[in-house]
Amino acid sequence: MTGGYPLLVADLVGVAVFAASGASAGVAKRLDLFGVAFVGFAAALGGGILRDLVIGAAPPLAFADWRYAVTAVAASIAAFWLHPALHRVRRTVLALDAAGLGLFTVTGTLKALEAGVPAVGACLVGMLTGIGGGVIRDLLTGEIPVVLQREIYAVVALGGAVLVAVLHRLGLAGVIPLAAAAVAMTAVRLIALRRRWSAPVAVP
Amino acid sequence: MTGGYPLLVADLVGVAVFAASGASAGVAKRLDLFGVAFVGFAAALGGGILRDLVIGAAPPLAFADWRYAVTAVAASIAAFWLHPALHRVRRTVLALDAAGLGLFTVTGTLKALEAGVPAVGACLVGMLTGIGGGVIRDLLTGEIPVVLQREIYAVVALGGAVLVAVLHRLGLAGVIPLAAAAVAMTAVRLIALRRRWSAPVAVP
Amino acid sequence: MTGGYPLLVADLVGVAVFAASGASAGVAKRLDLFGVAFVGFAAALGGGILRDLVIGAAPPLAFADWRYAVTAVAASIAAFWLHPALHRVRRTVLALDAAGLGLFTVTGTLKALEAGVPAVGACLVGMLTGIGGGVIRDLLTGEIPVVLQREIYAVVALGGAVLVAVLHRLGLAGVIPLAAAAVAMTAVRLIALRRRWSAPVAVP
Repeated sequence: MTGGYPLLVADLVGVAVFAASGASAGVAKRLDLFGVAFVGFAAALGGGILRDLVIGAAPPLAFADWRYAVTAVAASIAAFWLHPALHRVRRTVLALDAAGLGLFTVTGTLKALEAGVPAVGACLVGMLTGIGGGVIRDLLTGEIPVVLQREIYAVVALGGAVLVAVLHRLGLAGVIPLAAAAVAMTAVRLIALRRRWSAPVAVP
Repeated sequence: MTGGYPLLVADLVGVAVFAASGASAGVAKRLDLFGVAFVGFAAALGGGILRDLVIGAAPPLAFADWRYAVTAVAASIAAFWLHPALHRVRRTVLALDAAGLGLFTVTGTLKALEAGVPAVGACLVGMLTGIGGGVIRDLLTGEIPVVLQREIYAVVALGGAVLVAVLHRLGLAGVIPLAAAAVAMTAVRLIALRRRWSAPVAVP
Repeated sequence: MTGGYPLLVADLVGVAVFAASGASAGVAKRLDLFGVAFVGFAAALGGGILRDLVIGAAPPLAFADWRYAVTAVAASIAAFWLHPALHRVRRTVLALDAAGLGLFTVTGTLKALEAGVPAVGACLVGMLTGIGGGVIRDLLTGEIPVVLQREIYAVVALGGAVLVAVLHRLGLAGVIPLAAAAVAMTAVRLIALRRRWSAPVAVP
């Protein structure tokens, strides 16, 4: 865990939000409680598991640190029970999801670079960390991954990963620049979301 | 291979049964002989391959020991030819499947613990070993994994994995207690199956 | 990279062709440009990534050598724009795809053998290297993998992998015999394709 306690807390918030998104998809497919928890776990931790497999970190953090699994499962169960309420706060969920995307991409890129993966590969690993959970969530629920159909989401991840790689190359990969990169990604993602909401109206 | 020859034989029986379940799913989707063998292989060995990737055991046992692959492929081809007969003995197949679930979960949990994975992660790895093959089988045949929709199956695996972790922590992970854990899981699974069969009748 | 510069060039040609096949599948599913590039990347490099994960080569070549990723993405983007033209040259694409299958299977089998994987496992890894990208492509686009339904494709890969393992065992795994194996696989695949084209006519 690069960056100590504050990063851990931020990481777990990202895990919880991604788990809620996976759990909601599971509820929508009428999975049972176990299935909802499984999809929530996979959505929250699948990207990080892929990252750790690729960089050769065995066992992946999701299995090595119980706080990740417990957070993912607890958030999934909460989403299972609070699903109708979750829908009412979906703007909050989307904002947290954007924050999770930024955070996971930054930490994923950084871990890959520190594991010795060259820059281009590290950017791909970082992007995969950010979007991988959502891809697995959609495959498990029988959908073509939505991230392949909504360009902005993944492109934000890729752009953020490149930014982190550049900061790292310049020796500027301190806590503050990295946090700024994550915040910037979150902001771009939220702006993109807002524009997308109005896009269908503009088309004749 | 923890436990020597008897465990190997039990393991290969589990592989054969899981392969037959995968092959049957492939036949039902009208795959050709190769596709049936491939899905059978994935159903039988996919859980163990995931386990070995997660605990960093390269190459996975499915590729390191030819007996696993040969057993899986032979059982798949047998299921391809004997498919109608397989349906007539489906209670036997379900019983063997329950035994395979118990066995794979026990060995998966144990291997994870012995590879140094902490207890919570090892339980997840054990459960994944038990249910992973079925998840991959369903993804390959275009279905939402049935294990996500049938709560009891995976919960039995998770409960058994926790039991194994507790036995291991108490220094009681000998052959007899572990075999008892596998038998207990099989029994719970079979009882759950039987109750489920009558459940739809009970609901108004 | 076994075999030096000529092999690298051949490998990248295979990557480009497989990426184009993945990208075409993405276009057919109306994915956006990012989705098309992602599926192209996965189709081109997924088999090799699976291979490297199984043999414990971290990070996989697809992430360690930027030329692979750049080739895959560039070919995918080209396919995105040239898609109608691609359809007109589909015989060329099928021929290159057959060559890619032969090449990837040969190099995959060889890498597994050199990583110490026993012969049976190495053949499976080689076959998986050849067909894995196509399997992932189809899963990402919501299809049952076509390779499970078209027997000849994967059987050619498996036969070629066995041939490479035999050559390796006999100490004959030089450049010329291996290239001959790849060419033979390509030829068998093309003959199989041609016969298949006329097969529906022959059936009453």
